[in-house]
Amino acid sequence: MKIYLAKHSGFCFGVKRAIKLAEETAKEYGKAITIGPIIHNPQMVERLQNDGVSAVEDINLIESGPVIIRSHGIPNKSLDVLQSKELVIIDATCPYVNKAHEFAKIADKQGYEIVILGDKTHPEIIALQSYIKSKVYFWEKSDVLPKSKYTKVAIICQTTQNVDNLNILANMLTPISNELRIFNTICNATNVRQQASLELAKICDLMIVIGGKNSSNTKMLAKLCSEYAETKHIEIADEIELSWLEKYNNQGINIGMTAGASTPDWIIIEIYSKLCKIAGIEIPSMHSIDEIPSY
Amino acid sequence: MKIYLAKHSGFCFGVKRAIKLAEETAKEYGKAITIGPIIHNPQMVERLQNDGVSAVEDINLIESGPVIIRSHGIPNKSLDVLQSKELVIIDATCPYVNKAHEFAKIADKQGYEIVILGDKTHPEIIALQSYIKSKVYFWEKSDVLPKSKYTKVAIICQTTQNVDNLNILANMLTPISNELRIFNTICNATNVRQQASLELAKICDLMIVIGGKNSSNTKMLAKLCSEYAETKHIEIADEIELSWLEKYNNQGINIGMTAGASTPDWIIIEIYSKLCKIAGIEIPSMHSIDEIPSY
Repeated sequence: MKIYLAKHSGFCFGVKRAIKLAEETAKEYGKAITIGPIIHNPQMVERLQNDGVSAVEDINLIESGPVIIRSHGIPNKSLDVLQSKELVIIDATCPYVNKAHEFAKIADKQGYEIVILGDKTHPEIIALQSYIKSKVYFWEKSDVLPKSKYTKVAIICQTTQNVDNLNILANMLTPISNELRIFNTICNATNVRQQASLELAKICDLMIVIGGKNSSNTKMLAKLCSEYAETKHIEIADEIELSWLEKYNNQGINIGMTAGASTPDWIIIEIYSKLCKIAGIEIPSMHSIDEIPSY
Repeated sequence: MKIYLAKHSGFCFGVKRAIKLAEETAKEYGKAITIGPIIHNPQMVERLQNDGVSAVEDINLIESGPVIIRSHGIPNKSLDVLQSKELVIIDATCPYVNKAHEFAKIADKQGYEIVILGDKTHPEIIALQSYIKSKVYFWEKSDVLPKSKYTKVAIICQTTQNVDNLNILANMLTPISNELRIFNTICNATNVRQQASLELAKICDLMIVIGGKNSSNTKMLAKLCSEYAETKHIEIADEIELSWLEKYNNQGINIGMTAGASTPDWIIIEIYSKLCKIAGIEIPSMHSIDEIPSY
């Protein structure tokens, strides 16, 4: 039995940075408050809670800091409220999300009508919209366009959007616009994780997809992998069942592992260790997922 | 027998304007020189020649004016040469082509890499390129892209390009660019003429497509119409053959007419009159194609 981890797995750059800032802040101040859970991974949220990081939904209820702004940012008015309270604020907004805010300000200042490609109820998009003074339109797959003619129009994207959707929207706007400015603020991490998982699934008998059951990017990975291999979506090592492996009689099979952008390394390592134990593979204790054989 | 003219036929705005300027100039000065034939229609070029409008290919050979810049413009250095000769210059560059020049200057000044969608050997594109100081890339259907990654890239289009080609190019650039700015400088006239001709062809038995045999937009109209009706591409009324109509026994058929963007009204009227004569339809003398029943 061989066990591989997909080449691109687990924490994306923005999540890694936000977690690190939360940990450092809690260490320095003894506690930290995040506005909403910092990521969609219950185990990581729980571990941070033990370190003193707690989540609050309503910023008006925050009386003391330090406060951590999570990776998808907050609306400018919420930031004003926090600043008026004179709290210590640690900004963990993902730099790619910040880039989208900058582009939104430029497009707004230069008189473009703006179409946001994304889910208008998502916190990242609610924050993005706050940086645009003029009217904003929203578009998601299969929506009709709000207008039939544009002079100067700009598209700004939710960072987790799909480039195929961006092309569909752009192709609808191009023929009816004098000028279309596409700010491609889609982050490559989602796409890269999906492609790497698919490549691995193609050579595996069983795929273990690791991540929060409430994490949409992890659920998407499981869906994609199931097209090529038997697939199990788990959050923790305890969920692994011996029968999954026994049925292959433990003979020369390939097992693949992959993990969503909000899955911490330590969970991936725990699951890898358990699989090795079942397979009778001896491994040294490891501190980084980079030590796991990848494909 | 009923005879219809496609709703959008003949001279586009830019050609109409250039011809008018040439006629007015020749009237005022007794002569006029165009750089290259003013349009791709031999009959119109000949008629203008009788009015004193002659074409010269090499601007260095021009000794006296007035000189007319034709609708697709000239490179800025050629304009400098003409200006140094202190000639009377009449600029008949199509305003839509001028708009593309303005966009090119903006994109160039703001540091965009520029991809021109179009034929780099076409005079319109040679002129457009002259307004861009930095490196310019060209793209036409099925070309590969010159680079695999762009920070800020702009597309500017040949006015006669097809919006489907623009979408293909944009879809290739979007995933590999941080910012893509699409200046849609495609003129709607070509598309509108094609759609109107197709609509008419669908209800006709015979389509008469009128325009220079060397006019690519007219040839395209003939090709499209032939998918729905028997189609004849002619330049002048004398080419009409009685047998085309006789074979339908002259009973209740529909005949459609359409004309390319460089086909003058008087040729369309002559052909309409001849068709009416054959069909035994009496018509008053007309001065505008707007008097012809359209569909």
